[in-house]
Amino acid sequence: MARLVMKFGGTSVANVERIRNVARHVRREVAAGHEVAVVVSAMSGKTNELVGWARETARFHDAREYDAIVASGEQVTAGLLAIALQDMSIDARSWLGWQIPIRTDAQHGAARITAIEADELDRRLSSGQVAVVAGFQGLGPDNRIATLGRGGSDTSAVAMAAALKADRCDIYTDVDGVYTTDPRVEPKARRMAKIAFEEMLELASQGAKVLQVRSVELAMVHGVRTFVRSSFEDPDAPGMDDFDNPPGTLICDEDEIVEQEVVTGIAYAKDEAQISLRRLSDRPGVSAAVFGPLAEAFINVDMIVQNTSEDGSRTDMTFTVPAADLDKAVGVLERGKPEMGFDVVQSETGLCKVSVIGIGMRSHTGVAATAFRALAEKGINIKAITTSEIKISFLIDGPYAELAVRTLHGVYGLDKTV
Amino acid sequence: MARLVMKFGGTSVANVERIRNVARHVRREVAAGHEVAVVVSAMSGKTNELVGWARETARFHDAREYDAIVASGEQVTAGLLAIALQDMSIDARSWLGWQIPIRTDAQHGAARITAIEADELDRRLSSGQVAVVAGFQGLGPDNRIATLGRGGSDTSAVAMAAALKADRCDIYTDVDGVYTTDPRVEPKARRMAKIAFEEMLELASQGAKVLQVRSVELAMVHGVRTFVRSSFEDPDAPGMDDFDNPPGTLICDEDEIVEQEVVTGIAYAKDEAQISLRRLSDRPGVSAAVFGPLAEAFINVDMIVQNTSEDGSRTDMTFTVPAADLDKAVGVLERGKPEMGFDVVQSETGLCKVSVIGIGMRSHTGVAATAFRALAEKGINIKAITTSEIKISFLIDGPYAELAVRTLHGVYGLDKTV
Repeated sequence: MARLVMKFGGTSVANVERIRNVARHVRREVAAGHEVAVVVSAMSGKTNELVGWARETARFHDAREYDAIVASGEQVTAGLLAIALQDMSIDARSWLGWQIPIRTDAQHGAARITAIEADELDRRLSSGQVAVVAGFQGLGPDNRIATLGRGGSDTSAVAMAAALKADRCDIYTDVDGVYTTDPRVEPKARRMAKIAFEEMLELASQGAKVLQVRSVELAMVHGVRTFVRSSFEDPDAPGMDDFDNPPGTLICDEDEIVEQEVVTGIAYAKDEAQISLRRLSDRPGVSAAVFGPLAEAFINVDMIVQNTSEDGSRTDMTFTVPAADLDKAVGVLERGKPEMGFDVVQSETGLCKVSVIGIGMRSHTGVAATAFRALAEKGINIKAITTSEIKISFLIDGPYAELAVRTLHGVYGLDKTV
Repeated sequence: MARLVMKFGGTSVANVERIRNVARHVRREVAAGHEVAVVVSAMSGKTNELVGWARETARFHDAREYDAIVASGEQVTAGLLAIALQDMSIDARSWLGWQIPIRTDAQHGAARITAIEADELDRRLSSGQVAVVAGFQGLGPDNRIATLGRGGSDTSAVAMAAALKADRCDIYTDVDGVYTTDPRVEPKARRMAKIAFEEMLELASQGAKVLQVRSVELAMVHGVRTFVRSSFEDPDAPGMDDFDNPPGTLICDEDEIVEQEVVTGIAYAKDEAQISLRRLSDRPGVSAAVFGPLAEAFINVDMIVQNTSEDGSRTDMTFTVPAADLDKAVGVLERGKPEMGFDVVQSETGLCKVSVIGIGMRSHTGVAATAFRALAEKGINIKAITTSEIKISFLIDGPYAELAVRTLHGVYGLDKTV
């Protein structure tokens, strides 16, 4: 007997029929004797409808009102799933963020969970009742509904698993696990049985969409074993009830992974833009002068490359931002020019960032050299490189994205053995 | 300066454009210096969508889950209206039932308000903030959302007006007031400037759909002056800002009505069915034996006619039920036959109840006689009659309904003077 948090996203609860299917997944685990809390998203399309109304009402709107409006989507799904479970003679009830309560900070629209008062839930799970929790929402310090930002239901689920000391958090989604790369780009991509928290964090940060970055961070911090699996498989198919080895990908501590590959995955993010500041004055504090204003404008700066200057006075600095933020970023820089002290801003769009990720890199050398060689052989020009302990990222021209992904996937031996 | 509760129903907030129109009605009152709380329903169609999903999920469902699902409709409207008001630079915020809280009893799906803790709202109104309250919902003793039953937003508004000691509760709806009878049946129907609580209660109970019966009861008990007016008129048209005499109908204490008519309105309810129990044993307690089981089956019994028996042993009893409940009622009676002691149940459908209503009847005689004569002249057969202090109801054949309404409307001098 285990305690389980099961999370179902918007496409998994898109209509009443799918909600009934979700109920069957839950029934399977309950029948196996597990204690179950379920976290649900809004029916797919509903959140967009609600956001659309808020935007139609006023271009700029109070985030607290936005939260009250948008959180209603998960409220509906939680109630419907509780009804579907009861209809299968399973003891279940819905819980809204304010009822538990899931406490958050005051950042309406992008709140962070500060505490979950899970005592009552804990008691009910122990007594065999299934808790159906509305994801994506909590209660702010102002006693008003606060939402966690888009995709926040994953975070709700992981936080709930931590608070309830669950044995595992199963994220049911429209894919059946985490792949070595995007299977739409490289059909030879393999589903991983296990991946370490750190790797998943890099994969999610570098463009893999299967899990929200914050939920992975939270899982890593609290050591929540998180399992990615498909909600579209037959809930009662053979093997689905294998608790220790169900179909999907386990995100866990690296200690749990016996045979660690050097490289475990290739991620990519399209629509990157590059900004170069030419002849930037090379003095202490110049980075703060440049990136402070960008951060204040909520622009997410990524790969930063700065060379040492030849004469110690002027240098070039290059960094990337999402293409959608480029105009805003250039505006911020132009306004800050006197303060920052550079000659000219240059920018380029249509770029792609490809990342090679693997914990094994820590103890293996030559990983970067392998990539350089492979990309060069295909005539792919590398515009910038950044590295971390377990990741190497390359900035390349957008049209080469798929070729680069497939090349790297092959060169590190990730291809499916047929 | 006055304190005002304004209530807008589903058709008045059916989309974002109409919500903006509602905001203009509110702005008019705020500009005049009034303190305003607004109570809103769900966007029209939304409640039906939510109820539909709940029913699709399970034919019989937990009323507490139903409440969590259905209350989300008003939650959305309250947030959107707050945003629309803020967009007009009006200080406003939304309030959900659990936030105020509006406390209810445990009757989920048809809860009654037990208390409104309005201190914080009171403070905010005094400071000039508009409170936008989600109608139809409160917080049950189980700390879960409880809804007041269909049409409950009127009740929310009147209860809120009582708790906030508002000077008036303005119910904005898709009609522009209360008429002497249904204008679709009698084009000569006149809009009343004022109507007494008791009369409105009878009108609403007897089939006029403009206000929910419970909201009128509550207004009468708490002496809440309630005003029915149209939300579809231009919010800034001439006269709309006339606080003491706006277009619409005031429901108030009879003392406020200077020239009280003998008869103020004619109501009708179609789709009535009549049930007769033949040769019912005429003994003490027989009524309880008949009507107890019907009440337990939630069947609303209306006109009851029982004659004294000739020999003191057997009598006939006739009463009406809504046609939709007829089969259920007959079933209950057949099962109870041994206990109740009658020979046979007879029933008839396709009937209509027409009611003549007026406080003036208390002090005037001959009101019934006038009706008998007028109906007889038109060849309308009266199948049953019941009377109260301020109402006479006639049961007639359905096809004569409109003719009876027009005849009675004319004979009591209610026709519009052209």
